[in-house]
Amino acid sequence: MSTPQAENITMSAGGRYSLATAGARDVIDGATKLVVRAIGEVPVAAVDGVFTMSDMGCADGGTSLGMVRTAIGAVRERFGRAAVKVVYADQPRNDFNALARIVHGLGGFDGYLEEFDGVFPLFSATSFYRAIVPPGGLHLGFSATAMHWLSGKPGDLAAHVHAVGAVGDEREKFAAQARADWQTILLRRAEELAPGGQLVLVVFCMDERGRYLGNTGGVNMFARFNALWRGFVEEGAVTEGEYRAMTLPQFYRTVEEFRAPFEGEGAAARAGLELLEMETRVVPCPFAAYFKMHGDADKFATAYIPTLRTWSESVFYGALSTARAGGERRAIVDNFYRAYGDEVRNHPDGHAMDYVHAYMRIRKTR
Amino acid sequence: MSTPQAENITMSAGGRYSLATAGARDVIDGATKLVVRAIGEVPVAAVDGVFTMSDMGCADGGTSLGMVRTAIGAVRERFGRAAVKVVYADQPRNDFNALARIVHGLGGFDGYLEEFDGVFPLFSATSFYRAIVPPGGLHLGFSATAMHWLSGKPGDLAAHVHAVGAVGDEREKFAAQARADWQTILLRRAEELAPGGQLVLVVFCMDERGRYLGNTGGVNMFARFNALWRGFVEEGAVTEGEYRAMTLPQFYRTVEEFRAPFEGEGAAARAGLELLEMETRVVPCPFAAYFKMHGDADKFATAYIPTLRTWSESVFYGALSTARAGGERRAIVDNFYRAYGDEVRNHPDGHAMDYVHAYMRIRKTR
Repeated sequence: MSTPQAENITMSAGGRYSLATAGARDVIDGATKLVVRAIGEVPVAAVDGVFTMSDMGCADGGTSLGMVRTAIGAVRERFGRAAVKVVYADQPRNDFNALARIVHGLGGFDGYLEEFDGVFPLFSATSFYRAIVPPGGLHLGFSATAMHWLSGKPGDLAAHVHAVGAVGDEREKFAAQARADWQTILLRRAEELAPGGQLVLVVFCMDERGRYLGNTGGVNMFARFNALWRGFVEEGAVTEGEYRAMTLPQFYRTVEEFRAPFEGEGAAARAGLELLEMETRVVPCPFAAYFKMHGDADKFATAYIPTLRTWSESVFYGALSTARAGGERRAIVDNFYRAYGDEVRNHPDGHAMDYVHAYMRIRKTR
Repeated sequence: MSTPQAENITMSAGGRYSLATAGARDVIDGATKLVVRAIGEVPVAAVDGVFTMSDMGCADGGTSLGMVRTAIGAVRERFGRAAVKVVYADQPRNDFNALARIVHGLGGFDGYLEEFDGVFPLFSATSFYRAIVPPGGLHLGFSATAMHWLSGKPGDLAAHVHAVGAVGDEREKFAAQARADWQTILLRRAEELAPGGQLVLVVFCMDERGRYLGNTGGVNMFARFNALWRGFVEEGAVTEGEYRAMTLPQFYRTVEEFRAPFEGEGAAARAGLELLEMETRVVPCPFAAYFKMHGDADKFATAYIPTLRTWSESVFYGALSTARAGGERRAIVDNFYRAYGDEVRNHPDGHAMDYVHAYMRIRKTR
C-alpha cells in the first residue's frame, strides 16, 4: 500500500480481517443465543415501528453478518413488520470502505440485505465511549471483542507490552483506567437504551482461572510479544523509548470488575442497568486446532501470524519514532512478525491464541 | 495507488474532492437559505426528541459541512434540545473512510461536532433509489449535485459521451429513464418523510435557456470531452467499442421534467409531495473566475482539469476494456485529461465548468 492513508494502519483492509479471524466469528456466533434471548425480552411496547440495534467495534462487519441475520429474524418474529436499523460503529480510522462493501454484499461474504425488506444499515464513526445514537432509542446494543480497548493509555509500561505483565503501581494505573472506562461505556449505553432494551457484551477478560487471550496453558502470547520486542532493543533495531511506547492500551477485566458497577450503589445500577447473566468462555484458536490435525508447522505459522497481526500491528507501528522513514517503520514491523512466525515454525507446540471472554447480558430496567 | 481497491475508482480519496470542487461547495452554500426555510416550516409536533436529516450523494462530506452546521443551528433554534441525526448517504463504493474522517474532524476541514452536543452523524451506503431511513422518520432530506446520475445506463450513445449530445430515439431512451428515476427518487423520499417534513434538492438541469453544466455560452465541455475521446479512436488509442462504452449514465432534466410528477395525478402528488418552490441558478466556475484575475493559462489548466476529473474519471476508466492491463487503462485516462489540459493551456478562453442547477423545495403534506 502506498496511499497516504496507509500511514494510519488500523485493521487490515478489504475483508482480510474477517478471513484471518475465524475465531472472532466463532466468538460472535457463540453470543447469538444471548442476542436472541435479549430480543425476546424487549417489551413489544418499546418498539414503535422501528427496532434499533448496534454493533459496537464492528471492524469490517464480516464477523457479525451471521449474528445480525439471526437477530433480524428474531426481531421480525417478535415485532412483526418493524423496520430494523443496524448501526455499525467503530472509531473514525476504521476501514469503513470495507465495512460498507461487506454489508452491501460487495465484499465476498454472504450478506443479509437480500433476505429482508425494511432493514437499514447505518455506519457510525463515534467511539463507544460516547453516545452513538440519540437517547432512549436503542433496543439492542451488541459488542464483541472491542471493549478491552481503553479510552487512552494511562502510561507506558517499563517492562512489558501489555497490562497482563504489569505489576504494582503500573498495573493499578491500568486497572483504574479500566474501571473508569467500563463505567463510561455503561453510562453511555444507559443513555442510549430504551426502557427494557438490552445489551449483549462480549469482552476479553481474565477468567476465574487467570486465563486470558493467548494464555490458556501453553505459550503465553503476550510474554512472547514482549520477549521478541525486548530482543529488538538488544539487537539495536528499536530504541528503549520505542520499546516502552509499545504499550497496548488494553485491559482484561475480571468478572468481579465487570460486576462492580451493577452492585449496590454502583453507577450502572443507579443508571437503571441490571446485569442479567455473565459467564466466561474460552473459544479455542482455530489455527492451533487445525495444526493439531495437519501437523505442518510452516502452514500453521503462515496462517496464525496474520490473526495476531490484525489487531496489534497498528500499535507496534505507532510506537516507532516518526523520525524514521515510513518504509523503515514498516520494515521493523514486518521483521517483528517474521520473527514471531519463525519461532512458531521452529517450536509450534503450545502456540495458540485462544479467546477468553466474559459474555454478559444486561437490561435497562426503566 | 497500488491497492486492489484502486481498481474501483470513484471520487478521489481523502478530501481531494472537496478541495478540487470549491464550486460544489458554493452550490451547497447557495442552498442553505432553502434549508433554513425548510427547517422553519417543519411542524414542531413532527419532531419528538430527534430531528433526522439526510445528505444524499454526500461524497466525502466536505462540501456540505457549512450547510450542516447552519442546519443544526436552525434545528436547535426551532426544536430546542432535540437530538440531531445527520445521515450521510452515498453508494457503496464511495470513499467512506474520507467521509468518516472529514465529519469527525480528522480531514483538515473545520467540522461542526465540537460546537454542538447531541449530534449523531451516521453513514449509509444505500442508494437514493432506495429508502435510506425507515418510513416516516425523516424531517429534512437534502441532496446537491447527485440526482443527475441515473440508476443505470439505458444504452451506449453512438456519437457522444453524454445525453446532452444525443438525438432521436437515443435521447428519448435517456429521457424516459430520467423520468422513471425521478419518480423513484421522489417516491422513496415520500416514504421516508415525516408528515410536514421537507426536501431541498439541488439537481443539475438544463435550464430555461438551454444551458447546462459546462455549457453556458463559452466552450461546451461535453462537446470537448466527446471530440477528444473521438480523437483517441482515430489515433488508435481506444477502440470504437470503448468509445461507445464511455457514455455517462446521467441526464439533465428541464424544469418541466422536474415539475411533472407533482402536477395533477402525478406520482409525487399522489404520494403527498408538494413542490413549494423551484428556480434554476448558474454558479460560476471558480477556476475560470480566478483565471480572469490572474491570466495564467497554465495555472488555470492545472487547477481546472482535476475538477472535471473527480466525477468523470471512473466512467472513462470503466469504459476501457478489462482485457487491457490495469496500468494501460490508467495511462489512457491520464493521457485523456492531459490532452484536455493541453487544450485549455493553448486556448484557455471560454473554458469554464459553470454549474447549472434546479433548486427545489418540497413538502410532504400528510
